[in-house]
Amino acid sequence: MRHEELAEKECAIARTWAVIGERWTMMILRECFRGVRRFEDIQAKLQIGRNVLTDRLQLLVHEGILDRRPYQERPTRYEYVLTQKGEDLYPVLLAMLRWGNRYKVDEPPLQLMHKNCGHMLDPVTVCDSCKEEVHRQDLRAYFSVDAW
Amino acid sequence: MRHEELAEKECAIARTWAVIGERWTMMILRECFRGVRRFEDIQAKLQIGRNVLTDRLQLLVHEGILDRRPYQERPTRYEYVLTQKGEDLYPVLLAMLRWGNRYKVDEPPLQLMHKNCGHMLDPVTVCDSCKEEVHRQDLRAYFSVDAW
Repeated sequence: MRHEELAEKECAIARTWAVIGERWTMMILRECFRGVRRFEDIQAKLQIGRNVLTDRLQLLVHEGILDRRPYQERPTRYEYVLTQKGEDLYPVLLAMLRWGNRYKVDEPPLQLMHKNCGHMLDPVTVCDSCKEEVHRQDLRAYFSVDAW
Repeated sequence: MRHEELAEKECAIARTWAVIGERWTMMILRECFRGVRRFEDIQAKLQIGRNVLTDRLQLLVHEGILDRRPYQERPTRYEYVLTQKGEDLYPVLLAMLRWGNRYKVDEPPLQLMHKNCGHMLDPVTVCDSCKEEVHRQDLRAYFSVDAW
């Protein structure tokens, strides 16, 4: 199977991975979530090839995750801004951050303070109905007939 | 920058992405979370090259995300089982599932019932202190001196 074929599978995870599961894509989104908007700034930070960055940004714009907007005329230059669809990927980043903080660093290089309550954020995944933390063994899966 | 160099950056997300951000890796973990344990079964499902699958499984075992255990002798055959470190990646999968259900499929091919409360699961990310749903604009970032 080719990576692109994931987009055609009847699976929300496969289709999501077809979009964000390329090398560098989540690192580019990390920069966007930090407020970086310009090609040159992302490129300077990540030190990746311009063609790779161009390719990934095009995909993210095509998918409606980033919006490409002019910020300067003569010559026209563009910046990349997260759409709502892009913002909605933030929980994926938070889940990665939590795991990385636990397993991949000694002291978290980044800490997030939740301004609403004043505490340092520990982002947990809960069931929206009962607000309990979700554990895999508490779930029962129902697949539709054509689920992959 | 090479992809492997992400592992050396002072950033929990970069280091996490260095592990799970290869093509196919999250799809392999999806199979593991579904209870699939054997090389042949994962390979049959994903239809990817055996060398790619071997490479990804080796990385996941090396990282302590999967445990490689013998399940048969003469010849010895192995199965791959999620460790606690692997189980702790489940929120990443849930966050992807939620986004994919919203944006990438019409009808969710997979629905998860939360047995604790009997409702279909909508997995939301909350602050563990105040239990409120987390939005990016409610967060203030603090970087350590050597954060990337």
